[in-house]
Amino acid sequence: MSTNRLESFSDGVIAVAITLLVLDIVVPGHRHASLASNLGREWPHYAAYVISFVTIGIIWVNHHAMVGRLREADHTILMFNLALLLTIGLLPFATSLMARYVNEGGSAAKLAAAVYAGAFLLMSIVFAAMNRHILFNRAHLLESELSEPRRRQILARGLTGLIPYLLATALAAASAYVSLAICGAVAGFYALPIAQGGPES
Amino acid sequence: MSTNRLESFSDGVIAVAITLLVLDIVVPGHRHASLASNLGREWPHYAAYVISFVTIGIIWVNHHAMVGRLREADHTILMFNLALLLTIGLLPFATSLMARYVNEGGSAAKLAAAVYAGAFLLMSIVFAAMNRHILFNRAHLLESELSEPRRRQILARGLTGLIPYLLATALAAASAYVSLAICGAVAGFYALPIAQGGPES
Amino acid sequence: MSTNRLESFSDGVIAVAITLLVLDIVVPGHRHASLASNLGREWPHYAAYVISFVTIGIIWVNHHAMVGRLREADHTILMFNLALLLTIGLLPFATSLMARYVNEGGSAAKLAAAVYAGAFLLMSIVFAAMNRHILFNRAHLLESELSEPRRRQILARGLTGLIPYLLATALAAASAYVSLAICGAVAGFYALPIAQGGPES
Amino acid sequence: MSTNRLESFSDGVIAVAITLLVLDIVVPGHRHASLASNLGREWPHYAAYVISFVTIGIIWVNHHAMVGRLREADHTILMFNLALLLTIGLLPFATSLMARYVNEGGSAAKLAAAVYAGAFLLMSIVFAAMNRHILFNRAHLLESELSEPRRRQILARGLTGLIPYLLATALAAASAYVSLAICGAVAGFYALPIAQGGPES
Repeated sequence: MSTNRLESFSDGVIAVAITLLVLDIVVPGHRHASLASNLGREWPHYAAYVISFVTIGIIWVNHHAMVGRLREADHTILMFNLALLLTIGLLPFATSLMARYVNEGGSAAKLAAAVYAGAFLLMSIVFAAMNRHILFNRAHLLESELSEPRRRQILARGLTGLIPYLLATALAAASAYVSLAICGAVAGFYALPIAQGGPES
Repeated sequence: MSTNRLESFSDGVIAVAITLLVLDIVVPGHRHASLASNLGREWPHYAAYVISFVTIGIIWVNHHAMVGRLREADHTILMFNLALLLTIGLLPFATSLMARYVNEGGSAAKLAAAVYAGAFLLMSIVFAAMNRHILFNRAHLLESELSEPRRRQILARGLTGLIPYLLATALAAASAYVSLAICGAVAGFYALPIAQGGPES
Repeated sequence: MSTNRLESFSDGVIAVAITLLVLDIVVPGHRHASLASNLGREWPHYAAYVISFVTIGIIWVNHHAMVGRLREADHTILMFNLALLLTIGLLPFATSLMARYVNEGGSAAKLAAAVYAGAFLLMSIVFAAMNRHILFNRAHLLESELSEPRRRQILARGLTGLIPYLLATALAAASAYVSLAICGAVAGFYALPIAQGGPES
Repeated sequence: MSTNRLESFSDGVIAVAITLLVLDIVVPGHRHASLASNLGREWPHYAAYVISFVTIGIIWVNHHAMVGRLREADHTILMFNLALLLTIGLLPFATSLMARYVNEGGSAAKLAAAVYAGAFLLMSIVFAAMNRHILFNRAHLLESELSEPRRRQILARGLTGLIPYLLATALAAASAYVSLAICGAVAGFYALPIAQGGPES
């Protein structure tokens, strides 16, 4: 299959997933308080929207870098891609869960933050596995030949990108806010002009 | 109409349908239990998400194989394609129904599982009918000529793919879990590297 | 603007609108009845899903026929197209309203059916107006020259297509079911192999 | 990255966001009143749907004009574009909030209208910032060279487009209806054939 169709389908799924994030920001009803304070109380939903939106946007950029190296895709690559889209498709749920419970405190907040950071971690692991498969098992499908050291370098950068999500998932046991802050910092870092890439690129 | 537009519209519908699956995984409210146990109780939603996501992903791969054989599409092919998309569009509902009722037991669970497997069966039947129409009634629209035995072989493979869904629909009367397991096994089988195709390819 | 981008954006909106139709088919809760009878009671939602899905699918086919005649699009054409997409975007709401109230009987059912048929009528009017604008006011933007009689013929066919929706809207005052049946008949007629076109082509 | 992929992903997000607007128009339940009066009471939702739909449609047109000037996109442009999509993704929420509260009167209506107009203002600011970045910091990536005065002119037009949204946001403190009317007037003005552009083009 041409990578063109693969990219266009993936773009579609990612575009829908990124836009569904807004469904989590709901219009508050009357709850014994002014609209302003009701809206204010929902800040975790705004923070989660921004962090997840930017993160999914960066995944999209990295996905193109990864697929752009390919001349064509075989069945295994399609299935890796499907697994990656499956994990991206979960992000609106994980975002919603985290935003809903982060202010509750206690074990619920910690679990919700762990699921949130864990969803990013899972997505990054599938991304790295797909990248590894393409670079080392499907080198003959690459658009242009890449040296072994160059391929190792690309993969290493992706694996380094896992570390913050691993930390964020583990530290959720200590504090949901710390976990959220790490996810936010990762998104902010890769969005910087100096980054020129993302956790998986 | 060029198959290019047909593919891009179909990609759009499939991408939206596959991403809407996540809307079925809802954030649990407080229900006299910890968040962990509330999340745990929703395992059918996670299983259904994975099975339906992979199945729709495989349909997408097969859809491209089918449409990729065409040089152009006429009105009947467009209407077959619309019927196929109509059945794909129903899958998020069928998925949601099965996930909601599978743990209820009794006739509700069985009916829900029958609707779920039946939706996959219906989709596969429309797929096979469309493939048959293209291969035998619209052979002059094919990109490259295919021998009669080759066309029979493609169709036979598609019809063989119906059998597990037929079984899963029938066996729902015995056990909803068996039905679900068969649907999961089909998705898993076609996702394997050895499969190189799907129920309808 | 190239018609390529116009078509791809329109395809996106139509693909989302057609897939959102499924959100109207909700999983029934426990309501003092078996799941089977609860599902059965929701037949208007299934009928409405099929009718609206096929109708939007036919609009999509006709939209391509209309835009395919154009070499490029100017600001007015873009705004006509936006108005058309706006009316298509309303169809999931109109579908949901009709399905919800058709079985209620009385004035609510009639109003809901009138809104449903009226939404199709509105969409067809905007379609015909856009087609008229393209064929008569923007003839210099057409891909290939069309004779005046040919252009009149295309437009006349579109205007003829308005009549059943006009009838369906008016007859809603008599019976919601008659109105629904007419909308279904229109969808069925244009989906037939002999039709080779749609209400607006 | 080629601007082609950038445009197709942006088209996807914008197409989903514009179509999600309809989810805000909900089918009314029985509420001690006829369906007609229940539907009539929801007029702000219809008005908000039309205004937001047309505005997002015009953003789409302007986005193409802006990206169409580019030969290719670098990391900073991708991140500006992501920020723009993020603000567009918020519009269904802002639309829903405004429609829900505009008829409540008092501070809730004013705040909701301010959020609504403010969301358009924010989007326009990000648009102007992205346009400024492209025209002045990334002039070497432009498809064809533009003179300094021409670039200043494009930017000035975009900045002029901010003024009505600035006004609409500020005047929300006086009246939510005035704020809504200004947003509607902006959409109507740019949709006119004479406008040939939008607030940011």
